[in-house]
Amino acid sequence: MKVRCSGELALIDWMRKHCVCSSAVKTGIGDDTAVLPLNTREDLLLTTDLLVEGTHFTKSTLPHLVGRKALARNLSDIAAMGGTPTCAVVSLGLPTNTPTTYVRKVYQGLNRLAKAFSVSIVGGDTVKSRTFVINIALLGRVAKGRAILRSGARVGDHIFVSGCLGGSLKSDRHLTFTPRIAHAQYLLKNFCPTAMIDISDGLAGDLGHLLEESRVGAVIDEEKIPLHRGASLKAGLYDGEDFELLFTVRPNQADKLLKQNNKSFFRIGAIIKDQNKLYVRQKNDDIRLIPAQGFTHF
Amino acid sequence: MKVRCSGELALIDWMRKHCVCSSAVKTGIGDDTAVLPLNTREDLLLTTDLLVEGTHFTKSTLPHLVGRKALARNLSDIAAMGGTPTCAVVSLGLPTNTPTTYVRKVYQGLNRLAKAFSVSIVGGDTVKSRTFVINIALLGRVAKGRAILRSGARVGDHIFVSGCLGGSLKSDRHLTFTPRIAHAQYLLKNFCPTAMIDISDGLAGDLGHLLEESRVGAVIDEEKIPLHRGASLKAGLYDGEDFELLFTVRPNQADKLLKQNNKSFFRIGAIIKDQNKLYVRQKNDDIRLIPAQGFTHF
Repeated sequence: MKVRCSGELALIDWMRKHCVCSSAVKTGIGDDTAVLPLNTREDLLLTTDLLVEGTHFTKSTLPHLVGRKALARNLSDIAAMGGTPTCAVVSLGLPTNTPTTYVRKVYQGLNRLAKAFSVSIVGGDTVKSRTFVINIALLGRVAKGRAILRSGARVGDHIFVSGCLGGSLKSDRHLTFTPRIAHAQYLLKNFCPTAMIDISDGLAGDLGHLLEESRVGAVIDEEKIPLHRGASLKAGLYDGEDFELLFTVRPNQADKLLKQNNKSFFRIGAIIKDQNKLYVRQKNDDIRLIPAQGFTHF
Repeated sequence: MKVRCSGELALIDWMRKHCVCSSAVKTGIGDDTAVLPLNTREDLLLTTDLLVEGTHFTKSTLPHLVGRKALARNLSDIAAMGGTPTCAVVSLGLPTNTPTTYVRKVYQGLNRLAKAFSVSIVGGDTVKSRTFVINIALLGRVAKGRAILRSGARVGDHIFVSGCLGGSLKSDRHLTFTPRIAHAQYLLKNFCPTAMIDISDGLAGDLGHLLEESRVGAVIDEEKIPLHRGASLKAGLYDGEDFELLFTVRPNQADKLLKQNNKSFFRIGAIIKDQNKLYVRQKNDDIRLIPAQGFTHF
């Protein structure tokens, strides 16, 4: 059996069952970031993302956008917990004939975003590799016990997204998106989201992860999914790398949120009891069951 | 100019000057791990290491040894600060045709070592890559203000190593070495090392890093360098990946250390004023200047 056939999710499931984890860890494998005890007031967040040439960018992608994307993906994971990013370490695997100006431009893109989000670059590793790869591990923090997990959605909660979806890879938005740190902190402070995830595998896939962790189901309204210009409903449901927030709030919070922010947040559906089932309400009011899965990496 | 020509160190020097870093960071780029404030009693350590097939292991390396080495290198970095490892995140870049049993064996090797050192595996990332790569970022902790940096060596300090050197790559010891966490904690508790580093680039190279950070020089005795059976003096000086500790202590501590542990620690020389100069005292008592550089990654 190859990774391509069994799929990444089966592998992650296996890791989750078999990896060593102490009881001090609040949340480990299976959420956007790990949640660890930090001090009496705060929890520590830790996440990591690996970008590979040929998978996440191409030889012709501008180097500063490669560095930018590597950090932005990690920032999006910290956002999905409602956290504040703090420090990062950067690993580079470089072919020996890489021009040093290329590497400096990767760092310039990364540094610019780090500065914008007050992230310190505190170390790393630089090694020889046939394929150009960049891995960033990012620390963050969040008020004690307040990290928003994937597992908190309850029946009756309303489902929201933080922006338009679809066509991110085609339009190169996956290289230039703004991680939703500010949106997430605003939500955490004012509307107590019950569950949250960032959309990296596509709306259907990431909603699927949230449903699985929360042991619930969902109905979403196809007419309410906000789409980027030119993006089809299918692209909105299944395209990866949008990096918008997908979250749930209690019904009373939902109305308040819409009243105050009907331009930044979009209500697309509701949580139901039917475990792991994802339904779409069509224009004609028919309801169909769709696969709760998105972009596959293999 | 290519990375191969300008060298990794020039690049790291550039990063150090240009990377964003807040004043809250106690130690950033330029030591074995970053040192960050954790709580009132402890500091947080963060390190990362990238292993690439064709550079750090081959297609024929047993998968559990690949996983083991990836974590062991990081543990060695935490050891070099006198720290205790706590949590790790693991990124895998896998060719699509990788057998899932191969990946599980990588994790089994990694898990076994994690268990032995009470490290929790708390998350990660699994993506498609032409070249098989594994990156681990590891957190650790150390008593507040007690992390042993590369920069603390003072004129008159004695220089020690924690074991035999040379021939690690040839003998496959780089895949099976024991990270010196216990040795480092014993030293921290009893002998206040003034500076410490783990030997990954070779004795001459890593002593060079320590001299540079401490702004001092060193004389080492070629007869006192402990060598693995079959390893030449040249191998002992320049071979990479020994992962023994290289450290300095005040002269009065040195005698006490030798009295109590003449089998675990070897005194090989002393710190002198001559900044960045590394001398070797030969058998005939002649002293020669040698390049303070070791294994180059490019």
